[in-house]
Amino acid sequence: MNVSTAVPAPSSRPSPRSLRARDKLMRTAERLYAEHGFAGVSMRMIREAAGQRNNSAVQYHFSSRDELIVAILEQHAAAVERHRSRLVAVLEARGQASPREWIACVVEPGIEHHVELGTPSWYGRFLAQAVVEPGLREHARRAYTCTPSFQRLDRLHPSAGAGRDTELTERHAAMIRLLLVHMSADLETELAAGQATRDEAERAWRRLGDNLVTAVLGLSSALLPG
Amino acid sequence: MNVSTAVPAPSSRPSPRSLRARDKLMRTAERLYAEHGFAGVSMRMIREAAGQRNNSAVQYHFSSRDELIVAILEQHAAAVERHRSRLVAVLEARGQASPREWIACVVEPGIEHHVELGTPSWYGRFLAQAVVEPGLREHARRAYTCTPSFQRLDRLHPSAGAGRDTELTERHAAMIRLLLVHMSADLETELAAGQATRDEAERAWRRLGDNLVTAVLGLSSALLPG
Repeated sequence: MNVSTAVPAPSSRPSPRSLRARDKLMRTAERLYAEHGFAGVSMRMIREAAGQRNNSAVQYHFSSRDELIVAILEQHAAAVERHRSRLVAVLEARGQASPREWIACVVEPGIEHHVELGTPSWYGRFLAQAVVEPGLREHARRAYTCTPSFQRLDRLHPSAGAGRDTELTERHAAMIRLLLVHMSADLETELAAGQATRDEAERAWRRLGDNLVTAVLGLSSALLPG
Repeated sequence: MNVSTAVPAPSSRPSPRSLRARDKLMRTAERLYAEHGFAGVSMRMIREAAGQRNNSAVQYHFSSRDELIVAILEQHAAAVERHRSRLVAVLEARGQASPREWIACVVEPGIEHHVELGTPSWYGRFLAQAVVEPGLREHARRAYTCTPSFQRLDRLHPSAGAGRDTELTERHAAMIRLLLVHMSADLETELAAGQATRDEAERAWRRLGDNLVTAVLGLSSALLPG
């Protein structure tokens, strides 16, 4: 154990004020990216919109635009992971999952996260752009799928261990992933434009969750029957 | 009829050389956007990569970045529309379509277009970015769905005229659309990275087409049964 890294000197720990400033930059960046697109937003716009007078405020907290985007992605991925971990634990305690329960464990954590975020939110549109951005798509995919809860969920799959065509299994996983990401971005856009109340938004997110579970169930049994 | 607009003066018609330059800018922009993302590419990079020495070459042909992107979108949408129009005509001649034939008419025109483009291509990744870009998403959606062939296809729908929940019908259409767009971008990325031959690429596109028809059939019968 390396004492010098394990016990950081107090001066190397960011102050609460510095953490607040970092968080404000992340929230502001997410909103601007969602509304104007990655191509339409400069570091300077983010700094100014976050009320930072210091010209190098963004550079102080994030070495690059991609590091800023990755930090936002990881914060959300961690929140989604907490929801999924809780749902998987319930199925683990029972030792099995029906196909619908298994798929609900894939779909619902993201829906729960959106319900918590309330409306207007920006994360859905932000994520949809990150997953198609050439330099970020691999990272965004891994942040959401290579997680402990997904590994636990894999072991509970109704047909776990069955021999499968790898190309088809991966394609199937990709279809589910992009349905969740882009349908969420669509609903978020609608809710933001329609100025939905928090209650209306919650109902709309749960309806989308139900539709997605149903759609994915149908898609899965057609593509990977048996 | 306004004669002055219906019969343009010869001088207002672009020269073949000007049309070639315009096309070269479009092809170059598409490739750069696919490889580096909308945010990673400036008008200057496009002009230089297209071998244009004139500083205002892009501005001469396109009044804005969005106009350039829309021109690229529309060129591809027109090619996809020609494929769909041919397929719909076959079903119209018979006067009916099975659910699988109907869905094939939605899925296959885009697949055919990719087969024609060969590999490496850039259109798939370009389109995936356009449909999530806040200022372009509505335009991109309309360019591909509000077309004569889709209107003709609607009239051939196996359950045309049946009373449907509008939210669900629209959600269903959105799911299909985003499966086609983003699964195509995924395959294009793989083929470009793996340096597939033209034949390998064609087989891979047709396999994706078959998988998509199967997946969409399953999804549709689960989400909109009966």
